[in-house]
Amino acid sequence: MAHKNERRNLRGRAGRMRGGRGSGRAGQGQVRLWGRHAVEAALRNPDRTHRKLWATREGIASLDGELPADFPLEYADGADLARLVARDAPHQGLVLDCQPLDDRHLADVLDGDPGRPVVVLDQVTDPHNVGAIMRSAAAFNATAVVTQDRHSPPEGGVLAKAASGALETMPWVRVVNLARALEEIAEVGYWRLGLAGEADATIEEALTAGPIALVLGAEGEGMRQNIAAHCDSLARLPISNAKESLNVSNAAAIALYAVSIRV
Amino acid sequence: MAHKNERRNLRGRAGRMRGGRGSGRAGQGQVRLWGRHAVEAALRNPDRTHRKLWATREGIASLDGELPADFPLEYADGADLARLVARDAPHQGLVLDCQPLDDRHLADVLDGDPGRPVVVLDQVTDPHNVGAIMRSAAAFNATAVVTQDRHSPPEGGVLAKAASGALETMPWVRVVNLARALEEIAEVGYWRLGLAGEADATIEEALTAGPIALVLGAEGEGMRQNIAAHCDSLARLPISNAKESLNVSNAAAIALYAVSIRV
Repeated sequence: MAHKNERRNLRGRAGRMRGGRGSGRAGQGQVRLWGRHAVEAALRNPDRTHRKLWATREGIASLDGELPADFPLEYADGADLARLVARDAPHQGLVLDCQPLDDRHLADVLDGDPGRPVVVLDQVTDPHNVGAIMRSAAAFNATAVVTQDRHSPPEGGVLAKAASGALETMPWVRVVNLARALEEIAEVGYWRLGLAGEADATIEEALTAGPIALVLGAEGEGMRQNIAAHCDSLARLPISNAKESLNVSNAAAIALYAVSIRV
Repeated sequence: MAHKNERRNLRGRAGRMRGGRGSGRAGQGQVRLWGRHAVEAALRNPDRTHRKLWATREGIASLDGELPADFPLEYADGADLARLVARDAPHQGLVLDCQPLDDRHLADVLDGDPGRPVVVLDQVTDPHNVGAIMRSAAAFNATAVVTQDRHSPPEGGVLAKAASGALETMPWVRVVNLARALEEIAEVGYWRLGLAGEADATIEEALTAGPIALVLGAEGEGMRQNIAAHCDSLARLPISNAKESLNVSNAAAIALYAVSIRV
């Protein structure tokens, strides 16, 4: 149960409810999130404007914190919640409609910290993968995840569920032109290391000491040529065989780990 | 197109068709696979008995190899294939019914090779995660993936899709008693390294030089106490903060990488 005497509160701003909504898909310009970690992190995010929470009694009890008394909450049973979310999505008794997060800008997040890599994704379109990469980026204390608007999934429930809360804490910079973003990243002093299966050097060999931007392309095609051309070096993960490959979120996790243990 | 003059053939054994089947779910004791990598690997696996392939023309054309003339193939359109598979599953024009693979036994696969770790999973039940771990295990040339019968997903399409072909090549040993399996693994000379977020040592510190068995528990709960007690040491991944965590397949990928770069 979420007891009244718990110290931590769920602090997010509750937006005003609008009429005529309350079942079916999230309204225009809204984002629907589900699952305990994703919803709890969104409730705790002071930069997130909340519209409405649908929840089972168990879902509310599972939250670590207390909702404000005037929070727009509607109790529902699990089957009702299942109709609000993507097919077979594990909502865990919590479905939240909220506003998308404000855009983040590269110039505001890049700090040139050598201990905090930037992750740049070229055409990684699967929301599970982008969400999982955000989660790993948060775990390894990365500075930001950068994607290109036209070739990345929208902010949404599948991505947020895979991110397990990291969507709320990991700055996600969506840019119009990824090549231009890589130029900006270099200007701040980052070494742009692109992961490419055909590279000669392994990532251990290619890692340098300063701030690092890790650049990863989509599975299969890899990075586009123009993006690879905007990297300072290319490296591969030391996998056994050119025929094998790694899931892109697993490749990103390994690269983040490799950066974290650089000597 | 799969041209007649291609050198590589899809060699798998085609089983006899049985009457009265052909639409809906895979028959009793059968496994239904979908997606290009998963199906192509199954077709190429001489240890896999095939029952029937449903495919679009484009799906057949995407295969790298030629089906035997008498292979039980039925052309269908994409919408028909969609009805054969899990909801929204990306079948890529290929759906294959086949027999499950024969059971593998620990004693037959453990070779004590220090360059080839064993991956042991305790209660990792999500087929996406187990499949992704098989894929990473194959990429890092692991010896086998070991799970406990009662707490692991069945062989099936979701797992095979995430494994991207590795289900056919990575020995998967399903045991009744995981603690007993860990004893057997130690008897062959493996150092059993359990991943646990609360451990003092990091994985870099804990890795030893000989054969390694990596033991991972489910997200959230982690390993069961009895399984942790059957490890020779426990170690954590060097992530930034105890509140953060990694997806279990990402944690496994990092651990496999850490083993591969041991000095």
